Amino acid sequence: MYAHIKAVEALRAVHGQLPVNLKFLLEGEEEVGGESVAEYVAGNQEELRADVALVSDTAMYAEGMPSLCIGLRGLVYMEVEAFGPARDLHSGNYGGAAPNAVYALIELLSKAKNSRGVIQVPGIYDDVEPPAPAEKQSWESLPFDEKEFRKKEVGSKSLTGEPGYSVLERIWARPTFEVHGIAGGFTGAGAKTVIPAKATAKVSIRLVSKQDPDKVIEAFKAFVRKKTPKGVRTEVRVLSAAPAVLVNPDHPAVRTASEAFAAVFGKPTVFIRSGGSIPIVGEFAKHLGIPTVLMGFGLPDDGLHAPNEKFHLEQYYKGIVTVAHFFEQYGQ
Amino acid sequence: MYAHIKAVEALRAVHGQLPVNLKFLLEGEEEVGGESVAEYVAGNQEELRADVALVSDTAMYAEGMPSLCIGLRGLVYMEVEAFGPARDLHSGNYGGAAPNAVYALIELLSKAKNSRGVIQVPGIYDDVEPPAPAEKQSWESLPFDEKEFRKKEVGSKSLTGEPGYSVLERIWARPTFEVHGIAGGFTGAGAKTVIPAKATAKVSIRLVSKQDPDKVIEAFKAFVRKKTPKGVRTEVRVLSAAPAVLVNPDHPAVRTASEAFAAVFGKPTVFIRSGGSIPIVGEFAKHLGIPTVLMGFGLPDDGLHAPNEKFHLEQYYKGIVTVAHFFEQYGQ
Repeated sequence: MYAHIKAVEALRAVHGQLPVNLKFLLEGEEEVGGESVAEYVAGNQEELRADVALVSDTAMYAEGMPSLCIGLRGLVYMEVEAFGPARDLHSGNYGGAAPNAVYALIELLSKAKNSRGVIQVPGIYDDVEPPAPAEKQSWESLPFDEKEFRKKEVGSKSLTGEPGYSVLERIWARPTFEVHGIAGGFTGAGAKTVIPAKATAKVSIRLVSKQDPDKVIEAFKAFVRKKTPKGVRTEVRVLSAAPAVLVNPDHPAVRTASEAFAAVFGKPTVFIRSGGSIPIVGEFAKHLGIPTVLMGFGLPDDGLHAPNEKFHLEQYYKGIVTVAHFFEQYGQ
Repeated sequence: MYAHIKAVEALRAVHGQLPVNLKFLLEGEEEVGGESVAEYVAGNQEELRADVALVSDTAMYAEGMPSLCIGLRGLVYMEVEAFGPARDLHSGNYGGAAPNAVYALIELLSKAKNSRGVIQVPGIYDDVEPPAPAEKQSWESLPFDEKEFRKKEVGSKSLTGEPGYSVLERIWARPTFEVHGIAGGFTGAGAKTVIPAKATAKVSIRLVSKQDPDKVIEAFKAFVRKKTPKGVRTEVRVLSAAPAVLVNPDHPAVRTASEAFAAVFGKPTVFIRSGGSIPIVGEFAKHLGIPTVLMGFGLPDDGLHAPNEKFHLEQYYKGIVTVAHFFEQYGQ
């Protein structure tokens, strides 16, 4: 945001006026749902009319490597709750005959993905399209060290995920099913032999290409209904839903941004994707009918949302110049 | 305990002396592990020498139906912990490539039992022996209403458990695997897209007949090692372990107790089991080499450990007389 204002100031100082018309839209709620801005965009289409949106909420692939993000995964986030006996029961008196809500939820969720990481919800891959061969090929030329990724970033003995897909493809262009949290029964210190009456899990499905959030939600709900174990009742609550976003790299605005990046950083711009979601980009496409240029200046080691998060000053200054270049060239 | 002291007072008042020698052993720690009393029994075998132990910690099968418990299930209680990435990761950036500790634990535990309730830990049923035909037959004559049990006691749409076994057999004479609690990842209100680094579950296996707790623990640990998903590390911690207990109904003390019950309640005594565990009974057998008479006066609707727990006064008074009868007749 500051970089964009500084770019505007610089352009005004040099040219006395701006090469493009600008509308600033501030979103201060994204990390806690971002519902207000979605509503605002839907309700103020005329006021917000534009040729293109510019969002700086992504990172460059590596330091010194100008990169434009042209794909974001979508996200469907849900809560699954299982109800077994009417109240917690003593497992000595009822174990062997009473349903266990925690175990039922375990059984149910274990069926959502097979041991190789392939999602088992029927129809889930129907609208998944592979990235174009040229895009896939360009990913292969990116400097990606799988061993370093595993050891330094993930910190586990091995990586997981669908066989037959590279790590970048699995993260950027494949849907995933994750359980983000689970709770139920007795979890204090020591031993308590309850058969839990209730259990809850937070789950999400990341979406790619043409997967429709509503269709995916229905498919998951049908899956839960069908796989709910005997004696147990389940409920699914949807907490958020947003489709994947793909930006056409041949769009004039994206081409211009790519050239601005290359000019400032002195290297050809690479097109990358992100496995995360920026829901507002989908809202712009849906309600304003415009593409979004994802021009981000973060670096992979910024430590987003983590202790000691940082933003490199050089990225800030180069960001100002890149944004100014982009406005100037796009105005022509 | 009060009933036993009252019985002693009554016998002293009538006969001037006791018909048997008595040693009282007080255990005030059973609900929180009971480790001290187990140590005490192991270390004071000479002082505790006796022909038989009398424990009143069970219930009658129904009001007005004199019952002696001659079987208790054993219990192995464990904690299973799974470790995935080095820290919680963002599922947008790593989903599709990083192991998820919560999902790994779900996958692992889901394999411990099949959908019909049959435990899948290899060797787990090796030392399980069915109850004698006569005992099984006597269970069938007990007043057991499966529908009422399901609706009033369990409160679920249907019961679960191994096919081919009656409810009483599943609860009294079959091993079970239960997950008592599970926790991991984000479980607060709303949505957070973490790939959890850690997850924990409390699990138990109820033991019957000749199942050896140590052998069962080893079998479960081997199962966990073998089924731990790729990229994840697991640990199993044992919190408690006690074998099942079977009392020979033909032992003179049990026969005498049965006659005392029948005399006071005016009906033949039925032999039942309990699906719960009373670890001290196993310690008596192991360290003192003596059987235990499980002479309990509770009623099924006492609401053990629940709000408004009660103990019926009539059971208390009849209990005093039954204990006195037992001492008197066993002394002869």
